[in-house]
Amino acid sequence: MKRKVTLKQIAKELDVSISTVSKSLKDSPEISEDTRKKVRAFAKLYNYKPNLIALSLKNKKTKTIGVIIPEIIHHFFATVISGIEHIANEKGYNVIVCLSDESFDKEVINMEMLANGSIDGFIMSLSKETQQKKDFHHISEVINQGMPVVMFDRVANDILSDKVIIDDNLAAFEAVQFLIDKGFNKIALISTIDYISVGKLRTEGYLKALRSNNIPIDESLILKIEDMDNCSDEIELLLKNNTFDAIFAVNELFAVTAIKSANKLGLKIPEDISIIGFTDGMISKYSSPSITTVSQNEIKMGERAAIMLIERLESEEEDEEHYKTEVIGTHLVERESTL
Amino acid sequence: MKRKVTLKQIAKELDVSISTVSKSLKDSPEISEDTRKKVRAFAKLYNYKPNLIALSLKNKKTKTIGVIIPEIIHHFFATVISGIEHIANEKGYNVIVCLSDESFDKEVINMEMLANGSIDGFIMSLSKETQQKKDFHHISEVINQGMPVVMFDRVANDILSDKVIIDDNLAAFEAVQFLIDKGFNKIALISTIDYISVGKLRTEGYLKALRSNNIPIDESLILKIEDMDNCSDEIELLLKNNTFDAIFAVNELFAVTAIKSANKLGLKIPEDISIIGFTDGMISKYSSPSITTVSQNEIKMGERAAIMLIERLESEEEDEEHYKTEVIGTHLVERESTL
Repeated sequence: MKRKVTLKQIAKELDVSISTVSKSLKDSPEISEDTRKKVRAFAKLYNYKPNLIALSLKNKKTKTIGVIIPEIIHHFFATVISGIEHIANEKGYNVIVCLSDESFDKEVINMEMLANGSIDGFIMSLSKETQQKKDFHHISEVINQGMPVVMFDRVANDILSDKVIIDDNLAAFEAVQFLIDKGFNKIALISTIDYISVGKLRTEGYLKALRSNNIPIDESLILKIEDMDNCSDEIELLLKNNTFDAIFAVNELFAVTAIKSANKLGLKIPEDISIIGFTDGMISKYSSPSITTVSQNEIKMGERAAIMLIERLESEEEDEEHYKTEVIGTHLVERESTL
Repeated sequence: MKRKVTLKQIAKELDVSISTVSKSLKDSPEISEDTRKKVRAFAKLYNYKPNLIALSLKNKKTKTIGVIIPEIIHHFFATVISGIEHIANEKGYNVIVCLSDESFDKEVINMEMLANGSIDGFIMSLSKETQQKKDFHHISEVINQGMPVVMFDRVANDILSDKVIIDDNLAAFEAVQFLIDKGFNKIALISTIDYISVGKLRTEGYLKALRSNNIPIDESLILKIEDMDNCSDEIELLLKNNTFDAIFAVNELFAVTAIKSANKLGLKIPEDISIIGFTDGMISKYSSPSITTVSQNEIKMGERAAIMLIERLESEEEDEEHYKTEVIGTHLVERESTL
């Protein structure tokens, strides 16, 4: 039996990107006619079949859910999966997890692999690179072929599908308002660069809270970090070169790094600076002082995503496409890092 | 097309365990003849085919590795997966992860699902329940049908397969010897109950270090915890009711909980008590004081497991069964929790 050729192999053979192959096969005008011809000739020669999904779908239920997440060492995603597993087990579904490792190509390859008969539907959160590229054709393709997709946390607004999100903007607003209510008005922000949707939304919530309390925005107190692994130098500089009485950090790594940097500079938490983080993971819980943080109710997010997917899988009315976006509530967990 | 019946469905239908169904199908004398007959009649009626794996294997390569781990919120397993992913991507393989959630049944179900044509081979670490039951028939079945399995960390000595482990006994011995070399001779142990193989081996290493230094073993300084989620009360009691100058904890959760409990009781780390943990994860790194710990080189463990599996998958000589057990070296990461 001859092995089926994949998008990845075609891309490698022709030395073009996976995205180019996929777009060429759909005759997208974004790709030059030359390349389109070449790709389609090659695909025909090797008998590439992009539409296997729809064929297998109607006949065979795998009772398996495919989950694609950007990374696994992240407490947030690991906990969402616990929620998905909980509902899936209850309803008799298996769960398969694949990692995009924040890479667009890996996300596409994993989707292609899983969609090829292993699973009934997807629950996914976008890779950083996919968010940056804004190229979601692999997702719309799967949906067009009749396989349901539920997106969570890092979602694409352009894609028509069920979604489970938190209101990052509101959650950040509430966290900063909490600091303002404590009497602080010099509040620093440690965030990510803007193409990561959650970082952007949390930054907007911070700005909104300051504005609605008539606190002038001081750009020198806003730090946007690109390289997560080497954030400590930048955070130390922020602390050294500025004076402020509170920090809102958009994740727990930034929050704990701020605590460590403050200690190093002889500043006391919370006496000198109050700190609020985001995500209630191991770090926030076990850091000393433990960290006041925004809990995203990850378990519930996973549970809701699984319920939405399974409902769609088991619904009889396939034609009615009433996609829902469910917003999971957040709450502040008060610990030792705030006065 | 009629759906293939699974072990799980047969078990549910006949109200017996999955293990009973599997053993009955292999005519195991452990199961009563009555049950065996019932199961086999049912399986025949519904056309259950336990040997699909071997058939599909020879004809079709999926270029996909199946990984089964007990849990995902655990830094150790998440990091091993990073190592597996690294090699797999380099060699052109995809990775699918399934969680047993420490359950024997889920481990069996996941293996059955993945072995059914989705993957070429397994990398796995046993669930607690599987270790407790000592029932490894699902693994030997997969191996017998020609699908390679590499076990890591929590392995079954009875199963003939490639294995990647650390020398938990030696690593624990070295950690405790480090404390003894610092001049400590009242050293407490915080471990797990013995059926978890790594907990048992680390306990043995602790005992060996004391014995080889002629330090009498004080049973009241040995705490074995069953319920990880509620370990803090037991650890606090250990600290309250005994005096000692150092602690060796078999994981980082126990180590950080000991720090928190000591703080609560007014004891200073490391001035009053030195603490060494096991696993170099987020908690050890970001705790205050940061924790001296045994690094297991998880990335390397994952990489070696992937290399061993892929070598076996791509080797021409299928008959030669020279199984290897590779021992990954550990090292102590010195931080603030030890004098």
